[in-house]
Amino acid sequence: MTQEPTNVTADRLASFIARAFLAAGLPGQDAQSLAGLMVEADLRGSDTHGVIRLPLYIRRIRAGGIKAVPDIRVISDRPSAALLDGDNGMGHLVMRRAAETAIEKAKSTGIGWVGARMSNHAGPAALYVTMPLKHDMIGLYFAVGSNNHLPPWGGSESLLGTNPMAVAVPALEEPPIVLDMAPTVAAYGKVRLKAQRGEPMPVGWMIDREGKPLTDPKRADEGYLLPIGDYKGYGLSLVIGLLAGALNRAALGREVIDFVKETGKATNTGEAIAALSIDAFMPAADFKRAVDQVIRDIRGSRRLPGVERIWLPGEQSHAKWLERRAHGVPVAKGLRESLDAVARDLGIAPLE
Amino acid sequence: MTQEPTNVTADRLASFIARAFLAAGLPGQDAQSLAGLMVEADLRGSDTHGVIRLPLYIRRIRAGGIKAVPDIRVISDRPSAALLDGDNGMGHLVMRRAAETAIEKAKSTGIGWVGARMSNHAGPAALYVTMPLKHDMIGLYFAVGSNNHLPPWGGSESLLGTNPMAVAVPALEEPPIVLDMAPTVAAYGKVRLKAQRGEPMPVGWMIDREGKPLTDPKRADEGYLLPIGDYKGYGLSLVIGLLAGALNRAALGREVIDFVKETGKATNTGEAIAALSIDAFMPAADFKRAVDQVIRDIRGSRRLPGVERIWLPGEQSHAKWLERRAHGVPVAKGLRESLDAVARDLGIAPLE
Repeated sequence: MTQEPTNVTADRLASFIARAFLAAGLPGQDAQSLAGLMVEADLRGSDTHGVIRLPLYIRRIRAGGIKAVPDIRVISDRPSAALLDGDNGMGHLVMRRAAETAIEKAKSTGIGWVGARMSNHAGPAALYVTMPLKHDMIGLYFAVGSNNHLPPWGGSESLLGTNPMAVAVPALEEPPIVLDMAPTVAAYGKVRLKAQRGEPMPVGWMIDREGKPLTDPKRADEGYLLPIGDYKGYGLSLVIGLLAGALNRAALGREVIDFVKETGKATNTGEAIAALSIDAFMPAADFKRAVDQVIRDIRGSRRLPGVERIWLPGEQSHAKWLERRAHGVPVAKGLRESLDAVARDLGIAPLE
Repeated sequence: MTQEPTNVTADRLASFIARAFLAAGLPGQDAQSLAGLMVEADLRGSDTHGVIRLPLYIRRIRAGGIKAVPDIRVISDRPSAALLDGDNGMGHLVMRRAAETAIEKAKSTGIGWVGARMSNHAGPAALYVTMPLKHDMIGLYFAVGSNNHLPPWGGSESLLGTNPMAVAVPALEEPPIVLDMAPTVAAYGKVRLKAQRGEPMPVGWMIDREGKPLTDPKRADEGYLLPIGDYKGYGLSLVIGLLAGALNRAALGREVIDFVKETGKATNTGEAIAALSIDAFMPAADFKRAVDQVIRDIRGSRRLPGVERIWLPGEQSHAKWLERRAHGVPVAKGLRESLDAVARDLGIAPLE
């Protein structure tokens, strides 16, 4: 029997997450930052990348797979580029610092590109790629996925991840354009969801070891995700992995540690963020007005039969954010139970 | 009756192209540069983006749609970012200058990002995105396509182009990784080729105004290209267009001029290139050795039944370059006839 999820305000959710990280040994300010970022993910509708990951994060911290008190530091520094070593701390803290550093560099030189090594899963790319927006900057983000489910095109060995890339572009009156995508047809989280629900997957999501369509999500371990645009998505995953992984001396290919399965091992996750100052090219207000126009042209353009609305990238997340900020984040029964278990383990008050 | 193409050495092809541009009024050095870049496209196997475009370029120059002697200049300059105004010159000249500028900036600050406005079609992205490689840099490239064949996802109005993006990453002993892709399943050139050959298109390349599969390439004008990964490819095309077009005050969306059909009008094409210095992150030799390892891991990984070889992005173009450098560029009968017509028009010696 499925129970309706109950809605929890963002503030209560954040306060629970902060309690949990504090009890797991993180400094108070880091626990607060993490709570803010993770709730932001849930507010935006990234249900697979927000509070649902808390039990795993805590498990990794307790197993020694993530450091509670890392020394996040710049290990290479140029006027417009830097490399951070995250010292195996929570990825959110590493990438917030990376975004801030990129923004500072962009203020003085027009662009800042900051890579991170020894980081961890940092939630949805949208959290960081949107940080440059309020400084009238464009954000770009690349990350190595936290496990490998994608073979090279023609291959049957998962050497690549669903390495995400994201681009955020500010508008004036319209919500910003935020593209946050993995180069596979389906995310692995969607496959897990199909398995939980006992539903088959559509043809085109996965193939088996013979290259035949795989539609039974319970057999996902025997198969591989398919890239978007065949060899194109494979190429995208590879170059994203090189930019976010190899260039930062972070794990890529055979070196990637499964974040879910190997909880005690450092993942050496790599991510990169760039901030591009609009004023280096044209007055920011003029640019944002032009983006508004592009958005309105697209939204108002002719639709295929049966299509009710043309959406811009990030527009649905923006609508969800407004709705959940007002009415709370839905917490399903299973999620609440796992959060209650975290509370018992850590000896903290449960989620109200 | 189809005739076998005849092979022409790169030097003869370059010398013909240079003659043509010189006769069309370009300065000698610009004509030489253009010839070198266009032949490089043919050597790499970009048969739709090399010398085959010469008649159109010449037609545009003579119709006033491209300026023979432009004043290409920097109109906005920051330590790591710049905007060039191409003054409606040949796109190749504008983007070569943009790449050189980006490389200089990357040398001093770690990264350089240079946008261009009032540029034109510049041939394949691979020409420019590989320029940073010999400086131990990674290249990134974005461009607004020279005509619109892609609607927003759910739409039936072609507001977007097959806007290409490219990434080039150097290796040590292996050929570099060069991803050069449009966010559509098929390039429009492939559609034209199917029409020439009288062959149907596969389902998935295009849809008609009702959203139904379109497989007759002769009806391409009534249909739309499909993006890779559905809404993902649409999002990619849009953000590439914003980075290469809107940010550079170049044309995007409804402003795009069809390069093929409107030969007398300036297109205000936008392109952008970034160079990222590897030394800003780690020693370049170590990085390139790591890239070699990734390449070999992928090439040697397990294959699906029936797959003979796993290719890396750019590897087939590299192989073609070696072969054509040694044995010449194949020039089909139709292409030779159109080049002969150019020679007659300009009063120059034909292609030997």
